[in-house]
Amino acid sequence: MGDQKQEGCNMTGHVYKLVELVGSSDKGSDEAVRNAIEKAAQTLHHLDWFEVIETRGQLVNGQIAHWQVTLKVGFRVE
Amino acid sequence: MGDQKQEGCNMTGHVYKLVELVGSSDKGSDEAVRNAIEKAAQTLHHLDWFEVIETRGQLVNGQIAHWQVTLKVGFRVE
Amino acid sequence: MGDQKQEGCNMTGHVYKLVELVGSSDKGSDEAVRNAIEKAAQTLHHLDWFEVIETRGQLVNGQIAHWQVTLKVGFRVE
Amino acid sequence: MGDQKQEGCNMTGHVYKLVELVGSSDKGSDEAVRNAIEKAAQTLHHLDWFEVIETRGQLVNGQIAHWQVTLKVGFRVE
Amino acid sequence: MGDQKQEGCNMTGHVYKLVELVGSSDKGSDEAVRNAIEKAAQTLHHLDWFEVIETRGQLVNGQIAHWQVTLKVGFRVE
Amino acid sequence: MGDQKQEGCNMTGHVYKLVELVGSSDKGSDEAVRNAIEKAAQTLHHLDWFEVIETRGQLVNGQIAHWQVTLKVGFRVE
Amino acid sequence: MGDQKQEGCNMTGHVYKLVELVGSSDKGSDEAVRNAIEKAAQTLHHLDWFEVIETRGQLVNGQIAHWQVTLKVGFRVE
Amino acid sequence: MGDQKQEGCNMTGHVYKLVELVGSSDKGSDEAVRNAIEKAAQTLHHLDWFEVIETRGQLVNGQIAHWQVTLKVGFRVE
Amino acid sequence: MGDQKQEGCNMTGHVYKLVELVGSSDKGSDEAVRNAIEKAAQTLHHLDWFEVIETRGQLVNGQIAHWQVTLKVGFRVE
Amino acid sequence: MGDQKQEGCNMTGHVYKLVELVGSSDKGSDEAVRNAIEKAAQTLHHLDWFEVIETRGQLVNGQIAHWQVTLKVGFRVE
Amino acid sequence: MGDQKQEGCNMTGHVYKLVELVGSSDKGSDEAVRNAIEKAAQTLHHLDWFEVIETRGQLVNGQIAHWQVTLKVGFRVE
Amino acid sequence: MGDQKQEGCNMTGHVYKLVELVGSSDKGSDEAVRNAIEKAAQTLHHLDWFEVIETRGQLVNGQIAHWQVTLKVGFRVE
Repeated sequence: MGDQKQEGCNMTGHVYKLVELVGSSDKGSDEAVRNAIEKAAQTLHHLDWFEVIETRGQLVNGQIAHWQVTLKVGFRVE
Repeated sequence: MGDQKQEGCNMTGHVYKLVELVGSSDKGSDEAVRNAIEKAAQTLHHLDWFEVIETRGQLVNGQIAHWQVTLKVGFRVE
Repeated sequence: MGDQKQEGCNMTGHVYKLVELVGSSDKGSDEAVRNAIEKAAQTLHHLDWFEVIETRGQLVNGQIAHWQVTLKVGFRVE
Repeated sequence: MGDQKQEGCNMTGHVYKLVELVGSSDKGSDEAVRNAIEKAAQTLHHLDWFEVIETRGQLVNGQIAHWQVTLKVGFRVE
Repeated sequence: MGDQKQEGCNMTGHVYKLVELVGSSDKGSDEAVRNAIEKAAQTLHHLDWFEVIETRGQLVNGQIAHWQVTLKVGFRVE
Repeated sequence: MGDQKQEGCNMTGHVYKLVELVGSSDKGSDEAVRNAIEKAAQTLHHLDWFEVIETRGQLVNGQIAHWQVTLKVGFRVE
Repeated sequence: MGDQKQEGCNMTGHVYKLVELVGSSDKGSDEAVRNAIEKAAQTLHHLDWFEVIETRGQLVNGQIAHWQVTLKVGFRVE
Repeated sequence: MGDQKQEGCNMTGHVYKLVELVGSSDKGSDEAVRNAIEKAAQTLHHLDWFEVIETRGQLVNGQIAHWQVTLKVGFRVE
Repeated sequence: MGDQKQEGCNMTGHVYKLVELVGSSDKGSDEAVRNAIEKAAQTLHHLDWFEVIETRGQLVNGQIAHWQVTLKVGFRVE
Repeated sequence: MGDQKQEGCNMTGHVYKLVELVGSSDKGSDEAVRNAIEKAAQTLHHLDWFEVIETRGQLVNGQIAHWQVTLKVGFRVE
Repeated sequence: MGDQKQEGCNMTGHVYKLVELVGSSDKGSDEAVRNAIEKAAQTLHHLDWFEVIETRGQLVNGQIAHWQVTLKVGFRVE
Repeated sequence: MGDQKQEGCNMTGHVYKLVELVGSSDKGSDEAVRNAIEKAAQTLHHLDWFEVIETRGQLVNGQIAHWQVTLKVGFRVE
């Protein structure tokens, strides 16, 4: 599960930072998450996990124009 | 992000109303959202945004029979 | 909607139990839910509904390696 | 449990709406719920389920004058 | 509803205090609320309203021995 | 306090409805609440109380262009 | 109150487990709790306390057909 | 920020108490907070901080008659 | 567990009160809890249980100067 | 309302970041928000929206010395 | 951080279960967690992570008799 | 308490920023907090306070391998 750590993995003393992002997509909610991760990966290294905080969207002419997903992304601080 | 407003857009004094709906689908969670929006658009105008409140589903014979997503839909009151 | 019960359905006195599971998938969030349900159905009978509690994921090399969805599954206790 | 759907029940694509009400009673908390449902049933059809949101009450001369229960009522949109 | 104030009621500048209590009863949850209110009324004046925070209970020999309801009670400060 | 009811006020059996609105203002948060109430009063009678749910705002050129306050408004159902 | 422990009671090192159940009743909310406890007591020993998590119900023909109360039940693990 | 402590400030071992109050005002939400603080200061010493818990209000004739703000006030116990 | 009651314990009708405190310590979080309890015990009798609400702390020169733990303490009202 | 997007606005694929700030003011809560926004605007571009998270304040001599408002500010990541 | 997964770890399709436990200790809060884990490890395999849900305690003679920590423990279902 | 401000402290107009971190330790929960603070202090100045958000841990061979504490750290923005 999302938090387990296999035996043999050494992480004592590691420190992680969380940043909160909003990704958008006109395809769907999962795609909005992927877009945010992709953008984060351009400037941050050691990305480790994400958590979805909120799912919203904009409506235009009675249809979903953009899915907007707020997520937190955790990465190891060196 | 989901709430921004481009410069030049005039919304001072606007009032919006939120209604809470549950959409269902046997396809997936995004489709359940779309079904709720589509139904709302039949009677409400000026739909502006939605927020997902809860995702549930019904199980029949050990499989997902229906995805059921509760959402709030906001629209401008004229 | 997720909670309704058609007339004629007799459930007075029924008791249900909720178990909390985490399903994972490299495809997407809905698939992670389906994987958890499928596993639960192998040992539990009378599965009735599920509720999504949390959506997370693991990142490897700047991409989503696994979607991990925590859900509660309700089933009737005989 | 409250959300299950017996096999054979066809609800794909159904959309439900939730309204938030406050019922009051000088008898007790359950009676306040019943009063709200009774009132809702006078104008809404296809009532399907309710959820208790909050229980409060007014005190007069050191005794409970009114139980006040906030609930959401879900009904199918035709 | 629990919060309304009839026209003509003068409360500007009033200040209220909230105390958190737990009432118990072997009869039921409403009775536990009444017991807490009755006790509070012995030492506090101007009791105005209550809000239920939590409902719990103790089990002995597989049965409910005591219902325990946590509530907040508001009263006017003179 | 917001919930008290003076002795002599008869509300047994009354039922109230809550609607969720978003008011906006370029002045401040309180003004956004007032704008929403003013709009609600044009079509609803017996407005009794409101509760602030969320305070947000839009930024343009590094300044607050609009305060946006989500609130619930309760009114008596006749 | 629900958490006190008389002096002289030895519980150091005890471990308890919580299970989440939903009881139903056509009588009222307290009865739904009692039905869930009664069922739990058939298979679990050392039941110690419960906590109400959620109160819902099903509506049929504009009336409450079933009260459904979700609760957690704690019992000592031997 | 609300929690910082300048170097040199000695507070080890200090204990603080929190009381929950509701202030009201017909002017606005900030004024309701000030009224509650002013009243608390008449009987409590060493008031140190407050936290806003809830903002509500009463409506009369379609206008805000009273803003009612629930807050917690912390003070040092000697 | 925190809520169990041994058979033979008579608590029917008992009423408990909860007070919210903040304890501080330069040693650690548990010590901050103990300091708050110790202070409360100087003026309150029949202390029965506590619940941790929040853990914070003050930083001075990049180190933890004080752990500050907010807790609720319940005691029986005679 | 805070989330709407006029037709013709192109935001697909945009990613936003949220930062959490605390603004302070001796004037009032709205002013504390404005101070935080003003500071943020000195180093961040494309500020789009804010959300109020918490309102607190410091008390000195029984009066409000500083309003302290925690808010999240969203801005577009280029 | 608690959720990361090193590259090369294969967990696709894995399903995890969460159980909720309460550990107690007269030493401190961390020891109560360890006691619950130790007990869980006697009957469950593939324990992977835990999350602290609540920290409480019992007071006897004005001192902490038992720390009681509620936690969820996740383990892989084979 | 965590929020008080001694008289004479001048903080009007100050703005603070909050960052969210996860510290880990194989010793205990307090040590995980200290590790995160120590790391933060290497790059951030004017650290003022922290708040614990979540406590989790990883289990290996039925024992706690790492405590992982998520916290927010506030520091003054110059």
